[in-house]
Amino acid sequence: MSKNLTKRSEDYSKWYNELVVKADLAENSGVRGCMVIKPYGYAIWEKMQAELDRMFKETGHQNAYFPLFVPKSMFEAEEKNAEGFAKECAIVTHYRLKNDEQNPGKLMVDPNAKLEEELIVRPTSEAIIWSTYKGWVQSYRDLPLLINQWANVVRWEMRTRLFLRTAEFLWQEGHTAHATRQEAIAESEQMMNVYADFVQNFMAIPVVKGLKTETERFAGAEETYCIEALMQDGKALQAGTSHFLGQNFAKAFDVKFANQEGKQEHVWGTSWGVSTRLMGALIMTHSDDNGLVLPPNLAPIQVVIVPIYRTDEEFEAISEVANTLVSQFKKLKISVKFDNRTTHKPGFKFAEHELRGVPVRIAVGPKDLENGTFEVARRDNLTKEVVLKDNIVNHVQALLDEIQESLFGRALNYRDSHITEVNSFEEFKDVLENKGGFISAHWDGTPETEEKIKDLTKATIRCIALDRVEEAGSCVLTGKPSSGRVLFAKAY
Amino acid sequence: MSKNLTKRSEDYSKWYNELVVKADLAENSGVRGCMVIKPYGYAIWEKMQAELDRMFKETGHQNAYFPLFVPKSMFEAEEKNAEGFAKECAIVTHYRLKNDEQNPGKLMVDPNAKLEEELIVRPTSEAIIWSTYKGWVQSYRDLPLLINQWANVVRWEMRTRLFLRTAEFLWQEGHTAHATRQEAIAESEQMMNVYADFVQNFMAIPVVKGLKTETERFAGAEETYCIEALMQDGKALQAGTSHFLGQNFAKAFDVKFANQEGKQEHVWGTSWGVSTRLMGALIMTHSDDNGLVLPPNLAPIQVVIVPIYRTDEEFEAISEVANTLVSQFKKLKISVKFDNRTTHKPGFKFAEHELRGVPVRIAVGPKDLENGTFEVARRDNLTKEVVLKDNIVNHVQALLDEIQESLFGRALNYRDSHITEVNSFEEFKDVLENKGGFISAHWDGTPETEEKIKDLTKATIRCIALDRVEEAGSCVLTGKPSSGRVLFAKAY
Repeated sequence: MSKNLTKRSEDYSKWYNELVVKADLAENSGVRGCMVIKPYGYAIWEKMQAELDRMFKETGHQNAYFPLFVPKSMFEAEEKNAEGFAKECAIVTHYRLKNDEQNPGKLMVDPNAKLEEELIVRPTSEAIIWSTYKGWVQSYRDLPLLINQWANVVRWEMRTRLFLRTAEFLWQEGHTAHATRQEAIAESEQMMNVYADFVQNFMAIPVVKGLKTETERFAGAEETYCIEALMQDGKALQAGTSHFLGQNFAKAFDVKFANQEGKQEHVWGTSWGVSTRLMGALIMTHSDDNGLVLPPNLAPIQVVIVPIYRTDEEFEAISEVANTLVSQFKKLKISVKFDNRTTHKPGFKFAEHELRGVPVRIAVGPKDLENGTFEVARRDNLTKEVVLKDNIVNHVQALLDEIQESLFGRALNYRDSHITEVNSFEEFKDVLENKGGFISAHWDGTPETEEKIKDLTKATIRCIALDRVEEAGSCVLTGKPSSGRVLFAKAY
Repeated sequence: MSKNLTKRSEDYSKWYNELVVKADLAENSGVRGCMVIKPYGYAIWEKMQAELDRMFKETGHQNAYFPLFVPKSMFEAEEKNAEGFAKECAIVTHYRLKNDEQNPGKLMVDPNAKLEEELIVRPTSEAIIWSTYKGWVQSYRDLPLLINQWANVVRWEMRTRLFLRTAEFLWQEGHTAHATRQEAIAESEQMMNVYADFVQNFMAIPVVKGLKTETERFAGAEETYCIEALMQDGKALQAGTSHFLGQNFAKAFDVKFANQEGKQEHVWGTSWGVSTRLMGALIMTHSDDNGLVLPPNLAPIQVVIVPIYRTDEEFEAISEVANTLVSQFKKLKISVKFDNRTTHKPGFKFAEHELRGVPVRIAVGPKDLENGTFEVARRDNLTKEVVLKDNIVNHVQALLDEIQESLFGRALNYRDSHITEVNSFEEFKDVLENKGGFISAHWDGTPETEEKIKDLTKATIRCIALDRVEEAGSCVLTGKPSSGRVLFAKAY
């Protein structure tokens, strides 16, 4: 294993691609735009899933599973949604292969096995789910429906990057139905808050909560809530979205209920999702030139113990101490690994665990045995200290919390020092070019201006922050009046 | 909700279909052959997943994720496997829709967005995974690879039935690679044993462990191990398979390793899977004319408490007692629900929980409060008893274990009394027609005879049981010599 990564300062994008592969997170597959999520990367995703799933269930949601395929006519039913996703759909047209008589040993699509109606591989499941909800809702007593699905979806992206943009990705998608507009809005807001809670407290990534502009809104939504994070290279990343769908899908799929007065009404909907894209955000927020840095809350291995020895006797004595330590950590639900491979040297192991982002490394050699000590190294800031044996378990337990907090604090400092207020378009371009990050600027509220700024600078409006203050001003491009600032950035 | 199901004795197949829908397990979707797994059904599947996942991890496996799509050329590489699945593949040929100018508001497949190479939606993932393993294995130090994937797969079945046979289904598929033939065989056997352990101890379904004949073997395998269960209607159901792949996929995808002597060898493979089909086995093994019967180990709700009251005061007093009980059960990790809906009467609730297979129902009314008792009803045998308040928690805890065992015992009795030894083809047909179950008979070992028996009777060889005794005899059809009996049955 070659440890050397391209430096972030040299080529951030190359650094990212190398890190993802070298830290055993994912790799490109033989299928265009589709990735293989390797066991170590998948173990992190499983920890994310477990935590999110717990949060969804605590807020009253249940899991279910809906078909992978959406018949074309069903897909078309909600017009804006269909149009929004039509350009990036994988389409199943046939259901059988047959022997290719021209090429012995090869197979070809059987032209006699053409489907009557094409099937779209779901890019998102509103259509199939709302067509199902029609059968599940008759009366207000059937509401709310609070359902989540863990699934794969496919969007035929032309330019793909591991985790950040892949043709197939894994996600969860919540789809809820409510009796009233207020209740559906409250649900959308609640799920945005659940996402923010998860991303901040587990992933240690600070986010801005906000609303998308009409241009950036989910196709078919009345309002899109989002959480926006900032990567180390000054580009923003949308970490999760929660959509208030109004009655759009209920009307498209004729989902009505009898209210308490017996009157028929269309139901109100929401949908919300986060995906394996979060893995990209995790990597780009915390990692460094030595490799991955993981917040302890999401690390598959929180602590690794590396023995340093020359003789078999030393190895045995160290193993005994290490194994005791392992069982002490396990009792505290700290996930720990004793790296007792005899095929690799300590230096190799140090580099490997550093590359893979293990938060705490404990080294123990013959001197340590004599002195009753351990050498404890932190992955986040690469510092080391010597800790007394009697203290080690409490010390490490506290250290894991400290690392979790420290990573969040570091990311928050970076983020906060990269929100820049600007009041002219010159300043706007200058900050975008030379500093990056979020640019807080006045905007006249029109899609035309938004589009023009995007064309001129590649920056988009990431969100209208929920906590923005009312402030009269003039649009940074047109000079027209504005009632408050919005956040612009270049984005992933 | 109408509780009345068709009786099993009238029409077993209709009973099954009605039960799946009425007990809220699954339903047909608007997509041909694809089902919607409803929240209650999915909650059972989640319990299965959690348990299996734990067992896989305990035996050293890790999860990963591989692409949904397999390019046609990759799919073709292992010839037998390709041929085995070619007739039931969903094939993606295009990647974009466009507006249909002849039909305003409609979309059509964009003929300019044809893929250069067609993509097969995975019917199973050996091809894509072995093409990946090529990059992961260089030396014996990289082996074994012990990987599992939880995923959806698609097989274009013409006749589908909820859970038992659907075009898309959910499953797990393990794919392992080893340095030696013995190690791979040991892995196949281990996973068959893990499946048998799970199905018997969690699903309470007895199984026969055995080997498939050449005809019934997985396409591309050298040997298929299986576990076979028997349903209440006398038909068998294959509950899980574990394949020893030999070097077939390693050769097809050129996966080699340097052994300890530095010599290049092809690796040895296995694959193994169970699917949402197990839900069908669960239903058909235990349920009755009143609805679903669930073994406590897999019941999303193990205990339900139903209040019986006329006045608000009674409801309040009962709620207090019930809530105390709920927290006592929760402490013991018994999943419990207090059904305090004021919109439904006790009779309705009883029927609903019966239909949904909740193992234990506790009813509590004003008389019980006075007497310090509860009425406890078992779902499995529909008996009731009165239990003293002080005893209730221990009683229910023991009862759950008893129900779990009792269900297994009942199914085992049924199964054992439905393995019939026959020694003539007349007897074979008679037992198959009038009694059903497994028929233990001599077979001459040829695919031709196997095929002929299938044509004449619809019975197939379910397996060559691992524990069969050597016994000289003559084939039930041809009279040719045989060295032991095999198990025939009609099967799902």
